[in-house]
Parts: sequence; structure tokens; C-alpha cells
Amino acid sequence: MDFLNCMEYDKAQNLIRQSLEGIMIEGELVELPVSLGRITSEEIRSTEDLPPFARSTVDGYAVRSEDTFGASESAASLFEIVGEVLMGRSTNLELCSGEAAIIPTGGMLPTGADSVAMLEYTEQPDRRTLLVQKMVAPYENIVTRGEDVAAGAVIVGAGVRLTPQHIGLLAACGCHNLMVRKKIKVALLSSGDELIDIHEKPSIGQIRDVNSYSLAALLTELGCEVDRIGIIKDCYDHFLSSLKQAVERCQMVVISGGSSVGVKDFTVPAIQALSAPGILIHGLAIKPGKPTIFGMAGEVPVFGLPGHPVAALTVCVQVVAAAVRQMTGWKPMSAARGVPAVLTRNIASAPGRDDFINVRLNKTDDGYTAEPIFGKSGLISIMTQADGVVHIPLEKGGLYEGERVIVNLGTER
Amino acid sequence: MDFLNCMEYDKAQNLIRQSLEGIMIEGELVELPVSLGRITSEEIRSTEDLPPFARSTVDGYAVRSEDTFGASESAASLFEIVGEVLMGRSTNLELCSGEAAIIPTGGMLPTGADSVAMLEYTEQPDRRTLLVQKMVAPYENIVTRGEDVAAGAVIVGAGVRLTPQHIGLLAACGCHNLMVRKKIKVALLSSGDELIDIHEKPSIGQIRDVNSYSLAALLTELGCEVDRIGIIKDCYDHFLSSLKQAVERCQMVVISGGSSVGVKDFTVPAIQALSAPGILIHGLAIKPGKPTIFGMAGEVPVFGLPGHPVAALTVCVQVVAAAVRQMTGWKPMSAARGVPAVLTRNIASAPGRDDFINVRLNKTDDGYTAEPIFGKSGLISIMTQADGVVHIPLEKGGLYEGERVIVNLGTER
Repeated sequence: MDFLNCMEYDKAQNLIRQSLEGIMIEGELVELPVSLGRITSEEIRSTEDLPPFARSTVDGYAVRSEDTFGASESAASLFEIVGEVLMGRSTNLELCSGEAAIIPTGGMLPTGADSVAMLEYTEQPDRRTLLVQKMVAPYENIVTRGEDVAAGAVIVGAGVRLTPQHIGLLAACGCHNLMVRKKIKVALLSSGDELIDIHEKPSIGQIRDVNSYSLAALLTELGCEVDRIGIIKDCYDHFLSSLKQAVERCQMVVISGGSSVGVKDFTVPAIQALSAPGILIHGLAIKPGKPTIFGMAGEVPVFGLPGHPVAALTVCVQVVAAAVRQMTGWKPMSAARGVPAVLTRNIASAPGRDDFINVRLNKTDDGYTAEPIFGKSGLISIMTQADGVVHIPLEKGGLYEGERVIVNLGTER
Repeated sequence: MDFLNCMEYDKAQNLIRQSLEGIMIEGELVELPVSLGRITSEEIRSTEDLPPFARSTVDGYAVRSEDTFGASESAASLFEIVGEVLMGRSTNLELCSGEAAIIPTGGMLPTGADSVAMLEYTEQPDRRTLLVQKMVAPYENIVTRGEDVAAGAVIVGAGVRLTPQHIGLLAACGCHNLMVRKKIKVALLSSGDELIDIHEKPSIGQIRDVNSYSLAALLTELGCEVDRIGIIKDCYDHFLSSLKQAVERCQMVVISGGSSVGVKDFTVPAIQALSAPGILIHGLAIKPGKPTIFGMAGEVPVFGLPGHPVAALTVCVQVVAAAVRQMTGWKPMSAARGVPAVLTRNIASAPGRDDFINVRLNKTDDGYTAEPIFGKSGLISIMTQADGVVHIPLEKGGLYEGERVIVNLGTER
């Protein structure tokens, strides 16, 4: 199987996107503290004005701003102090022209006042007298009612992965529970006679089942609930029945290994034996990751990843993650999730395929350089040395030393 | 309190670093699948060679490379096929000159062979005859024993936050359990008469306890185990006893609110009433975050953060996170955790303080621009609009439009 018989990366991504159209994980109501990292399933609107009343943002004196016009150190404006706003207390003070009230940060602005003179620019010669030594503009040092969030405004859109910042804003608006997508249940299988669990010591010819652990960790980072089924030995009937169970129980299936073209390749016939439409992609024009399979068993996407750990992780980051995002409606939060860097050496790429190159980032005076980590494709140790990945698209025959590239750092928010 | 009476940011970071010297969270043995995101407490060495035997990285024929010298499409080298290596099986084949063995990807290299001819560059006219049409170099298409990881080599250093990539490499080496730092137990308290829990509807003058939720989420992202104690009303005795309990039960205490200079400020005397040395920082020359307090109650660091949610999160990201890293020995994995960008407008900064400016990133043809998000400091909604933060150090009076800056994206690995 050479790259010419494989599906192009962009085409494959489009096909997967189309195949998953209309398949969306349902929402559930969760409490705010456990919503960190979850994806909102609908936009969330505030039911209240934030703040619910006009409030001071500094320690100082509530005043009418017009009374301070022209005030300076040499010509202070004179006020009578008629009261004090207490923190955490409502106030029924009403200020007239020439009157001021002591107010703490966060204090409720009294009726009649439209601004606050900061403590730093005032003098209080006695209990009842205030001198303001700097002009105050209308609305200066206050937040008006609803200025932060107006009642009815969207505070978090749909499809947002929640950060501590979102949780803060939701808490401020009193959203103590909210609708998020359920976690996708992903069944994770490894196939291959040569595989043994990591607790075992490999005999000659055996190899540890790395992918059950690395892919489980990556899918967990992506917010999935992983059902680690483990190693299925190369017996077709057993493989098929395990796969059938996985498809019934889970919303996505990821198989690793067993996707090279050989006599022991059960993945393709097994997926074909499930519900239609079956296999849609058999071989992907990317490096690493060529022996990738994708099919749909009814509404359940089934990915067959390469057995090699580096290739399996690469395909999971580039292809499976996109499916996870689509099924949860997860929209990238920002246009900017990559680090621009200057390439330190040439990278060759064969025409007709997309390449994903592991790179190390190094800080320079005005940015970063990206240093490709080369090594035999068989080496697993390479993947822990990388800071990120550079994507060489199909149409490029390679990249040159000195070229500016974008380095993707991994799981995005 | 103006910035001149506050401690400079760098000085404060140094003082906190010194105060925490020798205070390190202990390690615990955990199973590999739950180690994602944990910090290794010691370096981890492989006890085995990886791979444990020389292995093919392609489907093809094991050969002696010298037998292929000069081979080309028009002048193929001739071999006798003397056997087949089966996947997952040991082989006792021994190749002599002119002999070849069928070998799958991952198959064990037979004695005598030093390389593999790829299927693509061969022809097999009959069961016993092989034509190799391209020269093969010594060690080509194979991984030698221990080439990936040699027995005794460090595979993951100490102080590394574990990613799916690390978990893959650890699985490959059979490390099914490993030593990581215990999660830091952090007590989280909010103080202030005006605070109510987020489930309640604020009356006039009341405000929801945002920080108990946003700081808990951030500390969870940083790998801590948060004990959310909640709101302590402004009664000194009650506050002091809650704080004493927190210090006994936890390894770090974070208090928010109650740190402005006012009659209701209990944080400073309460910290002073605990074990020595007590308060070490009272006011920090940063914006936002000036009313920050830091002290040590014996070996327990106690942070008093500003009550304002944006300021509290900023100080937690910039200051508390550094303490978390130090106490867990967590080393940044890469020099590169920020995105270089070009500033879209001038930012003024007062001399004598460090500023942290929220910015939005926008993609351009050759990188990103950073657009400062301004707004009254009272607005909580600002923090969800930012992609990252630009740090303006003490010595800078501000930054100019067009200047290149580094945008920090938040929690680092």
C-alpha cells in the first residue's frame, strides 16, 4: 500500500466530518464546581444584572462629579460628609450637591452620586469636611448596574470548554448548575498476537500494549470517558464479538494495531461485519499514520489506528480529536493555539501526503526556533522529547531552514 | 497604600521561593493509568532494553546488507528464501550469505541479518526466490536492541508533569507504577461580610463568592486537591479558628478578600497569630493584585489574595502557581510556553510596578497580534475574553504599538 492508494488528509477529514453530521452527544445538568474542562451544550445567559447595583471600584468618597470640576491640589473642591456606606450593607443615603459619603471598594453607590473620588486625591481635615484635589469624571471609579453583564446577555457560548475564568463569571452570575455535553464513552481495544499487558515481561517476539495506556491518557485529556478493553488476541470470532459489544456500549471505538495489510488483519472485515455503512477510509496519506482505518457502524465511529505508538498518538491527536470535538460541539476558543517559530533545518516531505513532524522549541531573542526531532520511525522515546508538531500539508514538498512555521502544542482548549 | 509601599514583584517571588526552600510534598506510588497530569518525584529509569531484540520496522525480507550492494531495478540481487519470521514469535532462523527470510513489521530479526529490504523494492518470482532491486544499508529498516531505550537510561526526569506521551514511553518500558508527588492539599477560604454563596440571590450590598469557585478550578488545573472551606463571615475569632484548622489540615492556605486596608481586615492579624514567621509580604507592586498578602505559618504558606475576582485569579496564576510548582518540584517542560505576538496598541504602565495585561490573540499572515482588553478593573466579564496575558516588568514604563511581546496562555505543563 503506497500513499497513492491512500486517502488524502483533507478529504479524509471532510469525509469523517460528513459521516458524523447530526451525531451529537447529549447534554446533562452538572454542578458548577465539576464543570471545569467540560463543553457547554447550550449558550448560557445571565438572569441578572451584574453588578446588581452601581458600585465603587476604589476606597474613597461618593460625590457628584460636577461638584469636582476644576478641582486641583491648589484649588480643592469642598464637600460636606453626610454619611458612610458600609461594605455589604444597603444604603439609603441621598447626596445633594456639595455632599459626599465615605465609600469602600465594592460599596453601593448612594442615590445622587455618579462617581467616586479616590482616597489618594482627597484630604479630610475633620469628621464632616472633605477636600477633593483632583477632578472626577462622571462614572469614574464606579461600575454601573449591569455594566459588567446585562440581564439576558450571553455569558458563555455553546461549545466552550470551561476554564477557571468561565467558572468565575458563571459563579458571579449565580449559575450554580449548567448544561454540558456528557463525556463521550470511547471503547479502546488493542489487537495483535504479539501484544502483552504492560505488567508482563515480554518474551522474544512479544511487545507491550503501549497504546491502551497512551491513547487512554490522550482521550482522557480530550474529555472522554475511556473504557479500556485491552488486548484482543488474533482470533477473528473473539475480535468481532468484542467489537460488537464495544459498539453497543460506547459512542466511539478506537482500535490500535491490526491495521497493516497482512493475514492477521481482522479490523477491516470485522468493521464490515457490523452495521452499515462500514469501512469508509482504508489508508490515510499522512506520515506517520498511513495504516489508518475509519468506518461507521451505524452511528458509532470506529477508528483503526496504526499499531506503532508514535503513529497511533499522532493520528489520535490529528484525526480522532477532531471527531471528539465535532461530537461534543466543541469549538476552538481562540484562533491562536500554535506558536510561530523559525525552522532550524530543512525537512523533506514526499509529494502526495501530509507530514506531522515532532519539533523541539528553543527561545531566541525575538521568538522561537523549531528544531525537528528526527530518528527512526520505530523509536518511542522521540515522542517525549517534542514540544509540539509542525504540519506539512499535501501541496508542499518540504520546508526550508529559516522558514516560519506554526508549532501546535497539543490538546487545545 | 500606594505602590511605593508595596514589595516589588521580583523581590516577592524571591522571598516566597526562599521561604519555601526545603518544603517539598512527599511522593506516593501510583498506577500508570492514573498518573496523567501528576508530577514525577524522582527520575525514572528503564530496567530493560527497548526493544529487547532487534526488530524490523517494515514489512519485507531480512537480509545481510552486504548482499544487496550494487542492487538496482535493472540488476537485482538474488536471494534464497529460507524461512519466515512470524509476528509475535521468536525465531531461531540463522541467515547465511545469499539467504533471506520473510519478516513482518515488528518481527524479530533472525541471527545473521543486519537489515530488512522493503517489500516495495523486491520481487518474489516463486516461493524460494527473492529479487532485491534496491541497495539496503546496514541497520536499514530495523531497530537494534536497546536503540530506543537502553537498560538503565533515564526515561522520565524528576519534576515532570506527565503527558500521554510520557505514559506511552513508561508503558513501553513496563513501568506500570511509579512515584509521583502527592497532590498539595490547599484550603480555600473567602472572607468578607458582603459575601454570599453562589446559590443565594444577593440583596443590595451583597456579592457572590466567586473566588471559591474560580480559584478552586485553577488550583485543580494546577494539580492540587482543593478543600473549599467557603465563606468566613467577618468575626475575628471565627476567622482565626477556621484559619488554624486549615493550617493544621492542609499544606497551603489561600484566602481571598479581606486584604484591603480597612477595619474589617482580619487576614493580617490572624496570620500573625499563627506560628512564626507570620506575615512576610503585605502589598505587592503589581496590577492587578496590589492588596496581596503572603505569610508562613510554620511550614504552611498562606496567601491572602485580593477580593476582586480578576485580581485574585491573576495573583493565583502569577504567584500561587509558582509556589505550587516549587513545592512539587515541578519543572517547566519546555522553554517555550508563550506565543510571540505584535501589540496592536500602546499600553501605559506606572513606574514601580509590574503589570499583567489581558490580551486577545488574532492570527495574521506570519504570526499573531495581541490586542489588549481594556475595561474598568471592576469587570469580571473581561477575563473570559482573553486568550492570554502580557507581563510588563517593573523597569518598563509601558509598551508601544508594534512592539513584539510574549503572550502567556495560562497553566503550563
